Amino acid sequence: MTYCVGLLLDKGLVMASDSRTNAGVDYISSYSKLHVLQPAPDRIFTILAAGSLSTTQEMLNRIQRDLDLTLNPNQNSLYQPPSQTLLNVNYMFEAANYIGQLSLFIQNEHSAVSRMSGASMEATFILGGQIAGQPHELFMVYSQGNFIQATDETPYFQIGESKYGKSVLDTIASPKMSLNDGARICLASMVATMRANLTVAPPFEVVIYSSNALMLQQRLKLEADSTELQNMHHAWESAMRLAFRSLPPFAWEQSDDGGGAA
Amino acid sequence: MTYCVGLLLDKGLVMASDSRTNAGVDYISSYSKLHVLQPAPDRIFTILAAGSLSTTQEMLNRIQRDLDLTLNPNQNSLYQPPSQTLLNVNYMFEAANYIGQLSLFIQNEHSAVSRMSGASMEATFILGGQIAGQPHELFMVYSQGNFIQATDETPYFQIGESKYGKSVLDTIASPKMSLNDGARICLASMVATMRANLTVAPPFEVVIYSSNALMLQQRLKLEADSTELQNMHHAWESAMRLAFRSLPPFAWEQSDDGGGAA
Repeated sequence: MTYCVGLLLDKGLVMASDSRTNAGVDYISSYSKLHVLQPAPDRIFTILAAGSLSTTQEMLNRIQRDLDLTLNPNQNSLYQPPSQTLLNVNYMFEAANYIGQLSLFIQNEHSAVSRMSGASMEATFILGGQIAGQPHELFMVYSQGNFIQATDETPYFQIGESKYGKSVLDTIASPKMSLNDGARICLASMVATMRANLTVAPPFEVVIYSSNALMLQQRLKLEADSTELQNMHHAWESAMRLAFRSLPPFAWEQSDDGGGAA
Repeated sequence: MTYCVGLLLDKGLVMASDSRTNAGVDYISSYSKLHVLQPAPDRIFTILAAGSLSTTQEMLNRIQRDLDLTLNPNQNSLYQPPSQTLLNVNYMFEAANYIGQLSLFIQNEHSAVSRMSGASMEATFILGGQIAGQPHELFMVYSQGNFIQATDETPYFQIGESKYGKSVLDTIASPKMSLNDGARICLASMVATMRANLTVAPPFEVVIYSSNALMLQQRLKLEADSTELQNMHHAWESAMRLAFRSLPPFAWEQSDDGGGAA
């Protein structure tokens, strides 16, 4: 499984992912699921991927080939890139559409065999980024190729094992937060998920993008044994315990101890 | 959907449930999923139920009929109760087995029709309680009729929509907690789930059982608009925000603000 989260803030974007990949319980390995693409100085894209690793990897290879051939057209190549690639789209939604179509194409390419074997080639993506002159935007691209866009009312998207870490986002995430706070809340959500589910594990990757910078502000990779991740983990758990201590007493605790010491 | 949680503590048991029942999104209603049975003064059982409401309700009716006929045998009745009912089991695991078998029987009774309609008659249960002379125990009864027992290492069981509220239990629940703290953590887990998922909703019911009491210590029903639940909800969310504020800064925040105000 996987857990990825993207946050649309007024000041920019935060995107984070774990790195665990598993096929069954006995083939567990580590792959990055966070991919940053900057095909030209006026545009930057970050893609988070959940689902079939083969679909995701083939997509990234195809994106790169489309970029190469858009930049250096080769009339002799058997393959010709589509008219719209990440190099020449003018809107973020066109990039989301391009990724959705590519994902569908790859899934269809393998669908006959995957249906026979029962394996799923589906993949879901979170796409964040900015094209100069346009606002920074965040999309979720479904495995069916369609996509939705984050708004102020729902400033985050999650893909993969999303339930364990949702409560902390629901409670705290807001478009007004600073980028650093956004990165912290994404990591807290990762830590909550990691603890609850074995199929989500470090290294955790986080990128911070400040609106209009057209380059990443920060890129962080936290290994399981890194001091930074361990500090975050311990701080979050101590803070949760403290939070728990601040819950109000029950009515009956005013007079007696309800059968247990406080 | 449903969310129920049971906690096995050194000092006794805490069991809690929401009350939302839905068949699709347009038939939403409220049913208690927490059932307390005390067939004799030397034994008390609490059953939490998730899954098919018809299976759960039929089971409770059948349990009651078995108790009635064990107490007042009626040779003329077409139905004869099994030799073991909740009135004469000597161990908690026998009660778990009785419930598992009953659940399987009811599911099988309707299986031909349910298979045709695609509706699931499955139900999962958490059973907690005590029989005089035995320790207080907590079981989860699967829809297949088999069951597992809570231990010190894993002192809680969840059924229904269990992922959203797991992180807080993982972090805080421990067999050493007081019963009141146990009830508070179950409610915090409920609140986290309710916020994340529309199919889990108040009234929330909580019972506290103190070991060897052979009667409930507390039984609480928190309506959505009750001051107690609202206080709990607000306290938990403020405490979470405070917890978030205590997370450590990133390395780069020592020197600059990373593009956003703190």
